[in-house]
Amino acid sequence: MPADPSPLPPPGSTPGQTAWDRTLRSPWRGLLEGQPVGIVGLGLIGGSLGLDLQAAGLEVRALVHREATAERARQRGLASRVATDPAVLAGCGLVVLALPLDRLLDPDPALLQALPPAAVLTDVGSVKQPVLSRWQALLERNGRAGQAGLFVAGHPMAGTALAGVEAGVAGLFRGRPWVATPDARTEPGALALVRALAGAVEARWLTCDAADHDRTVAWISHLPVLVGAALLQAADRGSGAAGLGDLARALASSGFADTTRVGGGNPELGLLMARCNREALLACLDGYQEAIGSLQELVRNERWQELAGALLEAQRLRPGFLSPPPLPPGDPPPPQG
Amino acid sequence: MPADPSPLPPPGSTPGQTAWDRTLRSPWRGLLEGQPVGIVGLGLIGGSLGLDLQAAGLEVRALVHREATAERARQRGLASRVATDPAVLAGCGLVVLALPLDRLLDPDPALLQALPPAAVLTDVGSVKQPVLSRWQALLERNGRAGQAGLFVAGHPMAGTALAGVEAGVAGLFRGRPWVATPDARTEPGALALVRALAGAVEARWLTCDAADHDRTVAWISHLPVLVGAALLQAADRGSGAAGLGDLARALASSGFADTTRVGGGNPELGLLMARCNREALLACLDGYQEAIGSLQELVRNERWQELAGALLEAQRLRPGFLSPPPLPPGDPPPPQG
Repeated sequence: MPADPSPLPPPGSTPGQTAWDRTLRSPWRGLLEGQPVGIVGLGLIGGSLGLDLQAAGLEVRALVHREATAERARQRGLASRVATDPAVLAGCGLVVLALPLDRLLDPDPALLQALPPAAVLTDVGSVKQPVLSRWQALLERNGRAGQAGLFVAGHPMAGTALAGVEAGVAGLFRGRPWVATPDARTEPGALALVRALAGAVEARWLTCDAADHDRTVAWISHLPVLVGAALLQAADRGSGAAGLGDLARALASSGFADTTRVGGGNPELGLLMARCNREALLACLDGYQEAIGSLQELVRNERWQELAGALLEAQRLRPGFLSPPPLPPGDPPPPQG
Repeated sequence: MPADPSPLPPPGSTPGQTAWDRTLRSPWRGLLEGQPVGIVGLGLIGGSLGLDLQAAGLEVRALVHREATAERARQRGLASRVATDPAVLAGCGLVVLALPLDRLLDPDPALLQALPPAAVLTDVGSVKQPVLSRWQALLERNGRAGQAGLFVAGHPMAGTALAGVEAGVAGLFRGRPWVATPDARTEPGALALVRALAGAVEARWLTCDAADHDRTVAWISHLPVLVGAALLQAADRGSGAAGLGDLARALASSGFADTTRVGGGNPELGLLMARCNREALLACLDGYQEAIGSLQELVRNERWQELAGALLEAQRLRPGFLSPPPLPPGDPPPPQG
């Protein structure tokens, strides 16, 4: 690692504060070069990361669970080396744990043993507080207390409807947020390295408190899954009970498709989000039911002016949630591999 | 109108039955040619229709409310003739009432007077029972009892986020359902002409009972508006109350954007849907709240296996609502204008 990884990333964030990195595409190359990047798991996130990092000229070594996956990953060129033996991670200066939340929270002991003791570790899970606590504890309990500060909890917010070794695509992270949730133990150099990783794939770097992250994604990412799933169930049952199931399917158009996209997505992912962020999600469900109940009361009581006001409020709110602010104009172009 | 508009369209549908037209692109030209098509209103639907009908070689005459709109519509070439004087509709064999629901249900008396007495009339409103009853009564009360059977309630199910004279685009209806809700009074020749209209813009023709239509679109079109609007309101209030409003906006990604697209759409449209389809929508809201409440109970009680089952059910249900069946292979190519 070079001696001067400037400009330095922001220190661990204060709860409630959002810090967009305004020098996103800062010199990541100096931090990442010279040592291979390890990726554990080559699903949508891991595979996409492998493609982009290699395109940026970095060496990528990947660990997967099954030999068939390894074979397919090699065919797809998702990493320079792919193996089912954790020893493949030897020599990596940074290891990205791109595992599903359940396997991330309960990792294979052989994986833990094989992690290079000086490597910076990061994950890509959609819930951060449980991951951060769990991994700091795991590392301490396994005689790696010194590595606990090298664990950077992270969450690249990018996705498609696909999963598995076929899902990885180039450019998945470009312009998307990559959130890290450092705490007081996180070493600045480790955070800088993960920030360099995000920069290499042209993601938008952002840091915040882990608990803030989890409460926030409950609203904008986990709640929409249940909102959409309930719509699919209710529309199926309601139209079916009236003998209108076929007509409902014939008439459903892009509005229904969009509203239910994440609700009809990967059930394992939705389940893990709910399990790992249960308390925050329950609070969101309370707030949501209050909101939909209020709208129903307006319809029931024919309070049309108030309903118009509520729909206008919704229309005005949405653009704020749509896209992150544009990158600052002075940003240098991304480095080419 | 030619003597033999074969193959004849299906007769008025039986409630609960869905009849996809399997000869969609049947010879529409013979029915539509020789007389101009009138369009009242050149918003998204009217303007798009004007573009497509002219592209198919038909003459289109349009009536709009304001001179500024007429001027812009002429610049955009939305119709062959555009005027604010209802007399522009003279000579039209088919008039499409492409008005917002409120103006459709309470039309300008001057419009009513100017409609050619022998013209087939159709509308494009998203609720059908009130429109059908209202127009049959209006025509009767205005000494046009004979024309009541020429009124065909219709609903082309296509849309974008845009509205107004700038919104119309070519190809909006291609492959999308165009539903008609004939009843016992609807004359088969009138229905055939509207079916020809749908065929000319390459829509997918479908007939069903008006009440069935309204109950069905409440599930797949009107409920999603309130579901998405409530999500926007709840996410804004909930994250704001926790001081996480900025972070929520920074982290919201395509999943949130999609789930809220129709909920954050045109508020006037949402309000009119709710007003004109209130009873059906209230029933849907009951069913929906039951569904989301059940999911919340599963999360609250950590009944993870049942939650997994519910999310899997949602995933399995969604494809059925996504796209209409492909056109039959024997279909002739659409006529070129």
